[in-house]
Amino acid sequence: MYDTIIIGAGPGGMTAALYAARSNMKVLLLEQGAPGGQMNNTAEIENYPGYDTIIGPELSMKMYEPLEGLGVENAYGIVQTVEDAGEFKTVITEDTTYEAKTVIIATGANHRKLGVPGEEEFGARGVSYCAVCDGAFFRDQDILVVGGGDSAVEEAMFLTRFGREVTIVHRRDELRAQKIIQERAFKNPKIKFIWDSAIEEITGDERKVRAVKIKNLKTGEITDKEVGAVFIYVGLLPQTSTVQNLGILDGEGWVITDDHMRTSVPGIFAIGDVRQKDLRQITTAVGDGAMAANEAYKYIVSL
Amino acid sequence: MYDTIIIGAGPGGMTAALYAARSNMKVLLLEQGAPGGQMNNTAEIENYPGYDTIIGPELSMKMYEPLEGLGVENAYGIVQTVEDAGEFKTVITEDTTYEAKTVIIATGANHRKLGVPGEEEFGARGVSYCAVCDGAFFRDQDILVVGGGDSAVEEAMFLTRFGREVTIVHRRDELRAQKIIQERAFKNPKIKFIWDSAIEEITGDERKVRAVKIKNLKTGEITDKEVGAVFIYVGLLPQTSTVQNLGILDGEGWVITDDHMRTSVPGIFAIGDVRQKDLRQITTAVGDGAMAANEAYKYIVSL
Repeated sequence: MYDTIIIGAGPGGMTAALYAARSNMKVLLLEQGAPGGQMNNTAEIENYPGYDTIIGPELSMKMYEPLEGLGVENAYGIVQTVEDAGEFKTVITEDTTYEAKTVIIATGANHRKLGVPGEEEFGARGVSYCAVCDGAFFRDQDILVVGGGDSAVEEAMFLTRFGREVTIVHRRDELRAQKIIQERAFKNPKIKFIWDSAIEEITGDERKVRAVKIKNLKTGEITDKEVGAVFIYVGLLPQTSTVQNLGILDGEGWVITDDHMRTSVPGIFAIGDVRQKDLRQITTAVGDGAMAANEAYKYIVSL
Repeated sequence: MYDTIIIGAGPGGMTAALYAARSNMKVLLLEQGAPGGQMNNTAEIENYPGYDTIIGPELSMKMYEPLEGLGVENAYGIVQTVEDAGEFKTVITEDTTYEAKTVIIATGANHRKLGVPGEEEFGARGVSYCAVCDGAFFRDQDILVVGGGDSAVEEAMFLTRFGREVTIVHRRDELRAQKIIQERAFKNPKIKFIWDSAIEEITGDERKVRAVKIKNLKTGEITDKEVGAVFIYVGLLPQTSTVQNLGILDGEGWVITDDHMRTSVPGIFAIGDVRQKDLRQITTAVGDGAMAANEAYKYIVSL
């Protein structure tokens, strides 16, 4: 019986583990892959105080490394379901059943797909959701970035390190990204824009992506553009299919909590990007994580 | 006219400045001393994700240094009052009046004093509230620490690096500190405890502290103990005297906000330790700071 099982090892989950372990709680941190969550898909992180700039996977490892020394147990597991049996909770993965007094849901959110022909087919052959992982494969090529938010524009700038030219395709005629990011992008001579447009299809050969069909949403006109890679940053989807049974989600699938990270089920907390919230940042995730561990500790003491 | 004036450069204020500047806002960061706030009074910070362990003032500088490059203006100023004139706010220091569309109160909390004879007299001569600042002055001496919370016990452990022996004097018969911290302290052979007791007086000579009078609160017995230094960690007081006029404080002087960091005055936000909240940590302050900057930005756009 664990004091707490934390599902997901992004910045929120790792902070909850840090705080829970320092409160002498028996902690299991469940993760489906490398620790870090969406940080691992982020090139340069410039808005985590304490670092001027740091590569995402590096910050992930810096957050992860101290946990083992504090006694945090780690396990790989794809969670099938979380069940509430009152004073204890059951977390069932594909091969193991874990019990804990509390559960902290830190499963985050994943990249939304475009859902166009070729997107799946050319995965790992030129279609990517992670510039820091894949950018270097496309040196001196023309790169396309889809989206208009912070991630799209920031990653486009990162990709100019590698690409000959980086073209941002956006459905609207202005960006959603923070103004400081927009300004930098507008000043960058390697970045071009195609406004009011969407990708219709990604095409290529057996080796890799070679082109995209771009539709102008105002005129309906379709043009072909030769590109070597397509990086897609068009939004986030909450990773909550395994906790649907608990009755803690809003209509879009985000977990509803109060400002103490408590869901409507006593002993079950949620933190970070998976929460229904306005601002999904590393800073806000670590704040959430500290609070949830503190609340879980108080909940256990009160049992 | 600034977009936002942030009062206080602790981790919350610096994060708000980082996020506000990255949203292209004109930012003034007002501070009464070195940036960092209570981090500067903290020896080793072990619970800020991204660092296994880091000295407080070092983390302060790491958070501060990027701000200038982002265009954040800094000023030294002791705020006298903050006034709300609706669409703009006035921040009045001892020699300057600043105007801004929004104000973010990040003034934090200060150490509570014991209020006993000798405490003021021997300030900087053996009475301290900052182990990392002053610990090294007391090598091979007997050191007293007053308090029973996380800070008291953590700083006592830090002081064992220098002192011959470190004695924790606490009013109760058990500590309030996190269990992991308590356990480490109990295992440390250099740390002694005097329970159910309070300091009555701090005495010394022209050079420095030489002894304390300790009263057992159960028996009333008073004993003298020779010590070379007294480190005091007995709680926090909100730094809100200059914003009392705004009607945003609770009965104890903490600023009341909603979970978006908004006070009851539109355009005035509060973050970090100065807020009425359960958990005062660097992690929660940086989360607060990011949220307040985001809210201030949205508020300005809506004007």
